[in-house]
Amino acid sequence: MSSERSASSLKTFFNPASAALVGATEDLSKFGGRCLNHMIEFGYRGRVYPVNPKYSTLRGLPCYPSILELPETPDHVGIVVAADRVLETLRQCAAKGVKFATIFTSNFSETGTAQGRRLQEDIKAYSRDNGIRFMGPNCNGLINFVDGFAMVSTSAIKGPRKPAGNVGLVCHSGGLGHINIMWRAQEAGLGITYEVSCGNEADIDTADFVRFMLEDASTDIVLMAVESISNGAKFEAAAREAAEREKPIVILKFGRTEAGRRAAASHTGAVTGSDNVHDAAFRQYGVIRVTDCNELYEVAKILRPRKWPKGHRAAALSGSGGHSVLMADLGAGVGIEWANYSQNTVDHLRPLVPGYAPVANPTDLTSALTGSPRLFQDALGVVAADPGVDFVVPILVSPTVAAIENVVSLAETTSKPMAVLWTGYCPENPSLTAASLVARGLPVYRDAMTCLKAVRAAMTYGEFLERRTHSAAGTQSRPPGINVDRARQLLAAADKVVTERASKEILAAYGFDTTPERLAQNVDEALQAAESIGGAVALKVESPDIPHKTEADAIRLGVQGPQQIQRAYEKVIAAAKRYNPAARINGVLIQAMAPKGVEVMLGIATDAVFGPVLVAALGGIHVEVLRDLAYRIPPVTHADAKLMLRELRAYPLFEGIRGTPPRDLEALGDAIVRLSWLARDLGGDLQELDINPLLALERGAGARVLDALIIKKGAS
Amino acid sequence: MSSERSASSLKTFFNPASAALVGATEDLSKFGGRCLNHMIEFGYRGRVYPVNPKYSTLRGLPCYPSILELPETPDHVGIVVAADRVLETLRQCAAKGVKFATIFTSNFSETGTAQGRRLQEDIKAYSRDNGIRFMGPNCNGLINFVDGFAMVSTSAIKGPRKPAGNVGLVCHSGGLGHINIMWRAQEAGLGITYEVSCGNEADIDTADFVRFMLEDASTDIVLMAVESISNGAKFEAAAREAAEREKPIVILKFGRTEAGRRAAASHTGAVTGSDNVHDAAFRQYGVIRVTDCNELYEVAKILRPRKWPKGHRAAALSGSGGHSVLMADLGAGVGIEWANYSQNTVDHLRPLVPGYAPVANPTDLTSALTGSPRLFQDALGVVAADPGVDFVVPILVSPTVAAIENVVSLAETTSKPMAVLWTGYCPENPSLTAASLVARGLPVYRDAMTCLKAVRAAMTYGEFLERRTHSAAGTQSRPPGINVDRARQLLAAADKVVTERASKEILAAYGFDTTPERLAQNVDEALQAAESIGGAVALKVESPDIPHKTEADAIRLGVQGPQQIQRAYEKVIAAAKRYNPAARINGVLIQAMAPKGVEVMLGIATDAVFGPVLVAALGGIHVEVLRDLAYRIPPVTHADAKLMLRELRAYPLFEGIRGTPPRDLEALGDAIVRLSWLARDLGGDLQELDINPLLALERGAGARVLDALIIKKGAS
Repeated sequence: MSSERSASSLKTFFNPASAALVGATEDLSKFGGRCLNHMIEFGYRGRVYPVNPKYSTLRGLPCYPSILELPETPDHVGIVVAADRVLETLRQCAAKGVKFATIFTSNFSETGTAQGRRLQEDIKAYSRDNGIRFMGPNCNGLINFVDGFAMVSTSAIKGPRKPAGNVGLVCHSGGLGHINIMWRAQEAGLGITYEVSCGNEADIDTADFVRFMLEDASTDIVLMAVESISNGAKFEAAAREAAEREKPIVILKFGRTEAGRRAAASHTGAVTGSDNVHDAAFRQYGVIRVTDCNELYEVAKILRPRKWPKGHRAAALSGSGGHSVLMADLGAGVGIEWANYSQNTVDHLRPLVPGYAPVANPTDLTSALTGSPRLFQDALGVVAADPGVDFVVPILVSPTVAAIENVVSLAETTSKPMAVLWTGYCPENPSLTAASLVARGLPVYRDAMTCLKAVRAAMTYGEFLERRTHSAAGTQSRPPGINVDRARQLLAAADKVVTERASKEILAAYGFDTTPERLAQNVDEALQAAESIGGAVALKVESPDIPHKTEADAIRLGVQGPQQIQRAYEKVIAAAKRYNPAARINGVLIQAMAPKGVEVMLGIATDAVFGPVLVAALGGIHVEVLRDLAYRIPPVTHADAKLMLRELRAYPLFEGIRGTPPRDLEALGDAIVRLSWLARDLGGDLQELDINPLLALERGAGARVLDALIIKKGAS
Repeated sequence: MSSERSASSLKTFFNPASAALVGATEDLSKFGGRCLNHMIEFGYRGRVYPVNPKYSTLRGLPCYPSILELPETPDHVGIVVAADRVLETLRQCAAKGVKFATIFTSNFSETGTAQGRRLQEDIKAYSRDNGIRFMGPNCNGLINFVDGFAMVSTSAIKGPRKPAGNVGLVCHSGGLGHINIMWRAQEAGLGITYEVSCGNEADIDTADFVRFMLEDASTDIVLMAVESISNGAKFEAAAREAAEREKPIVILKFGRTEAGRRAAASHTGAVTGSDNVHDAAFRQYGVIRVTDCNELYEVAKILRPRKWPKGHRAAALSGSGGHSVLMADLGAGVGIEWANYSQNTVDHLRPLVPGYAPVANPTDLTSALTGSPRLFQDALGVVAADPGVDFVVPILVSPTVAAIENVVSLAETTSKPMAVLWTGYCPENPSLTAASLVARGLPVYRDAMTCLKAVRAAMTYGEFLERRTHSAAGTQSRPPGINVDRARQLLAAADKVVTERASKEILAAYGFDTTPERLAQNVDEALQAAESIGGAVALKVESPDIPHKTEADAIRLGVQGPQQIQRAYEKVIAAAKRYNPAARINGVLIQAMAPKGVEVMLGIATDAVFGPVLVAALGGIHVEVLRDLAYRIPPVTHADAKLMLRELRAYPLFEGIRGTPPRDLEALGDAIVRLSWLARDLGGDLQELDINPLLALERGAGARVLDALIIKKGAS
């Protein structure tokens, strides 16, 4: 429902012509008092209506006994009343024709109680049926620096209103949103457009707020600090919109650890999917993920100028060898490549650097910098013009005012993205600080690692946009040779546990190569099958009631010769019956033994937030012990599929080690793309799908499904 | 040589009664000018002698044409002359009887040229022979805040002298040392005792400076920022001294990445060993490693109160659910366990927390905190008294002055270590800042991750001290059953490439269990050997000229029966001859086939800095592809050996997966301890030693050397 209403309709929510506060008071020790105070003091030019039956005036304004008595229909109503009175207040809003509300009140689903959840369901249903959209409950309100409107209790906006910049904030928590992020970002020199601390998001959710900010002309970057993504599909749509507009989203998403997930669950009652899947989704959608609140605005600094790096080759320049070592080491550690300067660059730098110093990158201009006012600027100009340099990082320690101004003007004029590391201060003018330069638009960092992580984030975003541009010409298109109808029919006809044979048939309908095999229902058929396949064979029980055949000991490998095949057949049947006497046994699969190869596990899992997701790994200990897994949200492009494989620590095994031949990465990539379309087409009906193993053969020889298992959703 | 002189003798170096500067000037754009300026302005109460033949007075002081003309022998001489005039200046120092010098001049070994290296060797030899100890060359001087003496050019000490605290700094680079670390630490509220930026450390090295600071009563913590450790053994001795005195060393050591190592090599010409070995050594010695300059003083904050946590269980308290989620998630991510409160704690917290909120940890006291001035203090007191809590983290956002003072006084009175996360500001008194509290001794952090990493560092240090105390009773003692003399004789008698058989004999002398085996020099002997061993056997060529038998195809496994043994014997010999026709062949080793087990690689490598080091890993892809290796400096305790195995990502394989039995971890630990003593006893003669594989059998069944190779140092 909520996703169908346009995000731009939230304009009135953020910038109402009139706003009422139910539960207003003059008492600043109360939430309603602080909230009313900000509605009056923050510079709001609309009409404010305090509502409280106890008062006739508040802060010199007429106070009304209820929403019903107001002289007009307010555009936005804030609600600060006890939880059991919220629904009644919403009824009055509906009667008055109110379209937007913010419900600050706690004691809803975040309590984890049935009563809290029911109360929340009630207000949600009522609002939906009566055309009221609301933020909350259990929320901390909103701040609009663009137009000047705040309905919030925080002390962080006391005093003269700070100027709006181009950064929007969407947070669950008030404490983090108002202080750790908003106030600190402003202290660091950034300007905020809008901030919401949206609590339980029973109606308007974080994706709606993000959409509004993306569509808003004054917001260029959206920062999110959330305990959960409530709706994977809506989030994806918002992220695609962000990519389209080249307005990056930076996200702090909690729940990396079990302790974090437990804490989130007891704070807003959030359902959290797998953190690895979130990571994969963010990467795929070009959403930049950070680890702590301060990193949100540290990364925002570098994105503000909207100059996207074309790659990950940087240059750094300083007057201190120590800084060169620091940057070289930490930069390489976060995946920044220090560019090899072009001959032209070296030729132009050579006369600028003292004779004994090599022209390296990071570049040490030595203490010669202290004596020569133009040296830094000249060297920076040369390096910024090098086409092999994607990002320039000038390093300041205790610069003169002139040196600082030179860097500022170079940053403003060059088309190359730039970030400044300034670890010290300006002895000439100590009031000239990093924050004052940030306020003038320059990304300035005080610590090397913070700087380099931001640079790397900008590079990752730039590379994402490049990939997006290059893949725009329909790469998310379906590979040839997929027969969706047949796969759908096979799946519909199968039991809940789809047998190996049927699972492979479904995969074959998606163009997978599967092991040659025949189903035998007696020893004679087994012997015939083995003869027609030739060579040694594998025998596996085929039963919808025995999904894990190894566990049942109902598999025999490398069997050859009539006598051995007969014995193996009988043993497989016997083992299956012993394992599960009630099992329906379709027969025994007779398969060709596979050639040598690297065994890959490829699967579809169902995530609580993002739905069907692809998983890839090497088999055995790589999954169980080393947890070396890669994830994607389907569908994926072939390029994406290959990046997925590259994420595995075990990737070098595909390239061949110790004289083993390289594997068919093209075929593996193709298999991943095909499986991603299967996930998209049929994922809604699957509980899980496992291809284990998919055998990666030598380069050019393909990849073959040796075993597969599908389990359908729902009761058996 | 230098290590033999006591560190305490550096007292005169840091606090001379008189100091001369050769190359002094009044020109503040020159190094010598700024340096003289600080010698006069920093509050030095000793006698200052400018030396420069061009002037008769400088800054109102008599200026002397040379050291020889000074009215007394200065305690410390600073040298700022061209590189080719340094030796001559040292000659004058020697003639005058000078004991300490600081050579600022560059153009020595850091240039990477033969000439630079020779110049450095010359001044080093001359000083050693003439009893002069010096810092540098290519250095940036020293600052002594305790007594007031500075010989340095940095602008970072301009203005009134900042108070000394209890933190010493030892750095290679002036830029990083003076600004990124010292100035920033002071800005953050810390006080510095001594700072050296010691450059090429041709004589007095970083370990000497660390030793001096450890022995100094005013210094409680030493921070190091170094591009390399010049001498592993001296560093180890300093680290042991630090542990003995419970004065932690915090280190920023560059060279994690190849780019960093290259940059360091061109900055100070440093030789860097393996970064993984450094990591292991630091952990073993209780040295805390950090990643960026700011982390040095952030960690120092938390160590200053010298309250060592007993374990890694923390508690955090705030008035914001968002902060609870943030701390829970990030804390668990860095290895902090959120303590389960005792029933007593829960009983006492219950009445303090509003009814709807659960008593969890991190503890959300909710917005009730705003209204109740004593609530925070009371709750903190309860939690600090819980014996299951090792560390307490109160979280402030926008506190009142009273709330802040309550936290300060609790931190001062409780015996429990405490760190404060304060993300916002004090609305009542904005001049009350985190830095002002740090200056009063409280560890205060502005960002969650910085705070939690410091907490984790303090915990790691506390756990190190606990381990050290428990293991004080002679655990670094030699296990029984080691015959050093026999091993030494066997090694002396062997070729450079020690054959498998001889290598195993050496290991057997250290108490290792090795495969039953016999050397056969003809087919008959092979048949006899196989019969006496019984069952299937392995055949391997035994030749000092074929270290890698698999590569030569000179191994046959699982051979049984006279005919097969004869054929295998002949094939092994033939393969060896084909592989290396000139090889000396001692015969063929006949070995019992090993039972099933997990194959471990255990070895001794030689590190450029730390000498012989132990390496452990699982075999095959774990070493080559996954780089899943653990390192230790020998000798190690049994507890250390088991921690080493635990560091491996593949560790769960030892515990048994998918129904495989657990492995004999006791025996593996014992093998590591034995190998560590071998490394200590014979390591100096080894280039490398590889046990590959050491077979880890089932619990109680031991660990057996299946194959081993030793390569001795020196020419063959």
